Amino acid sequence: MSGIPDSPLIVTAGEPAGIGPELILALADSPWRDRVIVLADPANLRDRAARLGRQASLREVSLPGDLGNPGDGALRVLPQSLARPTVCGTPDPANADALIAGLRRAVDGCRRGLFSGLVTGPLQKSTINDAGIPFSGHTELIAELLGSPHPVMLLVAGELRVALATTHLPLKDVPRRITAERLGTVMRVLHDDLRKRFRIAQPRILVCGLNPHAGESGHLGSEEREVIAPAIAAMQAAGIDVRGPVPADTAFTQAAGPADVVLGMYHDQVLPVLKYAGFGKAVNVTLGLPIVRTSVDHGTALDIAGTGRADPGSLFAAVELAAQLAGGA
Amino acid sequence: MSGIPDSPLIVTAGEPAGIGPELILALADSPWRDRVIVLADPANLRDRAARLGRQASLREVSLPGDLGNPGDGALRVLPQSLARPTVCGTPDPANADALIAGLRRAVDGCRRGLFSGLVTGPLQKSTINDAGIPFSGHTELIAELLGSPHPVMLLVAGELRVALATTHLPLKDVPRRITAERLGTVMRVLHDDLRKRFRIAQPRILVCGLNPHAGESGHLGSEEREVIAPAIAAMQAAGIDVRGPVPADTAFTQAAGPADVVLGMYHDQVLPVLKYAGFGKAVNVTLGLPIVRTSVDHGTALDIAGTGRADPGSLFAAVELAAQLAGGA
Repeated sequence: MSGIPDSPLIVTAGEPAGIGPELILALADSPWRDRVIVLADPANLRDRAARLGRQASLREVSLPGDLGNPGDGALRVLPQSLARPTVCGTPDPANADALIAGLRRAVDGCRRGLFSGLVTGPLQKSTINDAGIPFSGHTELIAELLGSPHPVMLLVAGELRVALATTHLPLKDVPRRITAERLGTVMRVLHDDLRKRFRIAQPRILVCGLNPHAGESGHLGSEEREVIAPAIAAMQAAGIDVRGPVPADTAFTQAAGPADVVLGMYHDQVLPVLKYAGFGKAVNVTLGLPIVRTSVDHGTALDIAGTGRADPGSLFAAVELAAQLAGGA
Repeated sequence: MSGIPDSPLIVTAGEPAGIGPELILALADSPWRDRVIVLADPANLRDRAARLGRQASLREVSLPGDLGNPGDGALRVLPQSLARPTVCGTPDPANADALIAGLRRAVDGCRRGLFSGLVTGPLQKSTINDAGIPFSGHTELIAELLGSPHPVMLLVAGELRVALATTHLPLKDVPRRITAERLGTVMRVLHDDLRKRFRIAQPRILVCGLNPHAGESGHLGSEEREVIAPAIAAMQAAGIDVRGPVPADTAFTQAAGPADVVLGMYHDQVLPVLKYAGFGKAVNVTLGLPIVRTSVDHGTALDIAGTGRADPGSLFAAVELAAQLAGGA
């Protein structure tokens, strides 16, 4: 059918002790059920369903041959077996190996075209690390598995899009990581993937300064003049529609003019606006990869796991956006 | 009359080549006309009115004795004489002395109770500096004139309030300026002035971390554990309602819980949200002073000065809030 992707999306449940499994159950009851295959431990899903007093109609599938049939009323599950049964709210490092192995399978399935895109539920970073596995986040691992040296983090909430020049760094390390090379790479990835994935013919990129008031003509910092402005000029010379550096505090107002994406220099410069504008429906997208990858914008929420209070809005939005980016919605 | 302040507010026009004079003219046509005295060059106001094809009914007053009579249909103007006539859009350092002297008179009038509060229009910092006058901003000068060592910058947009632990610093200088002493002072000023000025019985202060995810348990920076959390604990022990450090990116969402003010560690961590939520109606308030002082949240907008396109919304909001804080609205 035109407009429907040929392959399902693969959606990972993430940390089995967190809210991930109940978000997956919500997906099973949604119109998205037949468009996805979920990577999860079926026993974990059934346990969580029982705890919440819900039904869970699951059908196990296997790679590469048996991906099941959509439309039979069941949620298709690609099983990952956990080392130990899950205690709700208490992540177990013994399961870390299985979770990472599952993520590898999901990425590999995308690369092979079995899946049209990857949507990830939240993992508990510290638990993976406690198991002795170096893991700084989904984005970094997925990029490494795919041999992609320049993943770019984009957050989307409705019409608002923000991208980050640096991601999870202590604030004191940010200024030295803002280099013309880094900025050039990020702007080019943004330009290319907003064209290719988001189908925006000539993406307009608005770049924030590093310092307050974008350095106020050098009175509040020199990085704008020395690094950011030259990087922007180089991209403009290459025909990319990019403006800035502009003060971050007015970058999201009408005064800044229209833009398809605002590029922030660091995490807390632009994510508070994005989450204020779109909490519960914000989606994290990784650009610069050969596959489509989206993610929820929240964590494992261990404190409310198993209570049924978790809001599946971000997962639904992540699935919907992945389907759009994959060309099917 | 109950609820009406005894004394007028003093409102400064700010840079005479910027949009300040036309914002003052808008004030003259508003219901606020009789509640304010403006500090401006009458010739400058008349020139701007002529340029915009408007009427300007002005009445000059003098300190301390003749503050004029509200209700006669004219805007009361405390005259400041400029050294040179103003060229719209082109600030002249020759006028810097007069502008700073005017600000001193306005502050002095507040201190003496002639005015119930001070509302400042935008000055052009670089022009004042070009005149050889060290001037890092209204806030700093006003605090110095009043002998107030700890001014705190608060931005208000409707129900949303954000305060800053540091203000106009290059980003690389921020981490070392976040000290327990500084944070303690700021939290105490916030607590005291939200009680005294905003009449909030037990103000709830929500404190952001310095690093992304508030340091993620030390994985993304140590300042939360070493500096911010101990400063918060000390204030809690003193009976102040303060929580944190919380991740800045979710501080403005329901997940963070209710707060009367969000305390950001630096400028671009919290101002983008405030201006996104309330651009055109945001007001800058200085706490920690013996007088009421508010300000517009924008600059001189030299590029549109004289076009009539300037939006007086922030000035009106600044006047309204000053009147409320002074006890009269």
